[in-house]
Amino acid sequence: MKQPLSVVKIGGEIIDDPQALKAFLMLFSQLKAPKILVHGGGKTASATALQLGLVPELIEGRRKTDQDMLQVVTMVYSGWINKTIVSQLQSNGCDAIGLSGCDANLIRADLRDKKRVDYGWVGDLSSASVDVNRLTQLLNLGLCPVFSAITHDHKAQLLNTNADTLAAYLAVSLTDAYAVTLLYCFDKKGVLTDRADDSSWLAKVDASGFKELSAKGIVAQGMLPKLNNAIYAAENGVEEVYIKKADDLLISDIGTQVF
Amino acid sequence: MKQPLSVVKIGGEIIDDPQALKAFLMLFSQLKAPKILVHGGGKTASATALQLGLVPELIEGRRKTDQDMLQVVTMVYSGWINKTIVSQLQSNGCDAIGLSGCDANLIRADLRDKKRVDYGWVGDLSSASVDVNRLTQLLNLGLCPVFSAITHDHKAQLLNTNADTLAAYLAVSLTDAYAVTLLYCFDKKGVLTDRADDSSWLAKVDASGFKELSAKGIVAQGMLPKLNNAIYAAENGVEEVYIKKADDLLISDIGTQVF
Repeated sequence: MKQPLSVVKIGGEIIDDPQALKAFLMLFSQLKAPKILVHGGGKTASATALQLGLVPELIEGRRKTDQDMLQVVTMVYSGWINKTIVSQLQSNGCDAIGLSGCDANLIRADLRDKKRVDYGWVGDLSSASVDVNRLTQLLNLGLCPVFSAITHDHKAQLLNTNADTLAAYLAVSLTDAYAVTLLYCFDKKGVLTDRADDSSWLAKVDASGFKELSAKGIVAQGMLPKLNNAIYAAENGVEEVYIKKADDLLISDIGTQVF
Repeated sequence: MKQPLSVVKIGGEIIDDPQALKAFLMLFSQLKAPKILVHGGGKTASATALQLGLVPELIEGRRKTDQDMLQVVTMVYSGWINKTIVSQLQSNGCDAIGLSGCDANLIRADLRDKKRVDYGWVGDLSSASVDVNRLTQLLNLGLCPVFSAITHDHKAQLLNTNADTLAAYLAVSLTDAYAVTLLYCFDKKGVLTDRADDSSWLAKVDASGFKELSAKGIVAQGMLPKLNNAIYAAENGVEEVYIKKADDLLISDIGTQVF
């Protein structure tokens, strides 16, 4: 039987709220090892970019990561947020190590194709992106990897990467060696049918249910890529995938199971 | 016989010059492993602080690290500079892993005493600061640790730490297990008797020579703490300590040997 391992993604809404982040990290510290944390960015990167006088360039509503923006997200995600989280986990007795994809070449990405749209320095992941052997060595030392979603192309270029996608690829890559659970934690109870009502969370969603929710417009814009990543993980060997509230991290059977 | 290990500190002047940094990292990649790189900050932190509208608070000519400044140095040192260096080393085939002191609790510091002067969130190191076992485990995996000079107190507080001092304590802590060489690399040929003349480098300096140079005012302000750290290392088991030009990294017997 494979050893259980948890990959937990914590969303930007929690990171923006120091008290909520602290409470979540207390829970995460109690989660059974081996475990991996992936964190999003929150609003600090945008706020810092604005303070630095950067004008966001939007393409089809999505921000382009130009050279200046790459510097800001690397500073904020891999620097301030990552080390803030690691130092808090360490004080809780969780032996965390902060990592980005370039570190030990753990996550190599490909520059997103620019033919249709040029999103700038954005990285896309593939099934070959994660160095599973290297990651397993760190886990075997009893360390808890904490990833920011900055990767590289192994040709000296850092790349901005979607944190939900990164969590899914990490989880899938580890399924040969571990019985992997993937938990997307954020500020809602799960996938809601009524975004204004936190009690309207769905217990289960599968690929066909997702299509229906999406067609009816019930699943909102931000939830679409998250659910896509969750379904990708569930369909590729991850044993349990949940979208759930950060407060409920340690409580089983609460939140939306994706399969 | 102990295995040789190099601890290399690269100074801010080189980090501020992308071409010089690239050239240095090519040389560093060719240096025989095991090896550790410690990097300073350069001017990016100050420039970023100014851009963010922070007003530096100076105490006896030294900058206080208040909460805002701690965020800036953590962003710049542990984020942008650290990951830029790691991604370049990786592209050179050097299996670098970027670390700060909080990561895997590798370097624990003590908040500097505030009785006389309050420097803010500044960390001082002691002989117990470095977790040598953990660091050796990472080295044994074939990894090349790349440290920014941000540490923590293991009580969730990040601390700004002097990079020269951090390199010295890392080097000394590893002397039980390795035959350690410590190389302080910067933009000059070594300790100069005439700061305007790069050919005036001293071949050797020891503690008494340092006192003399210091008393005569030949050693300049920035060189005083660097030489103090170098002498501390030489007197505490580090086999070879040099202050030398970054370009000369791979050339023995050039630069100032400190003993």
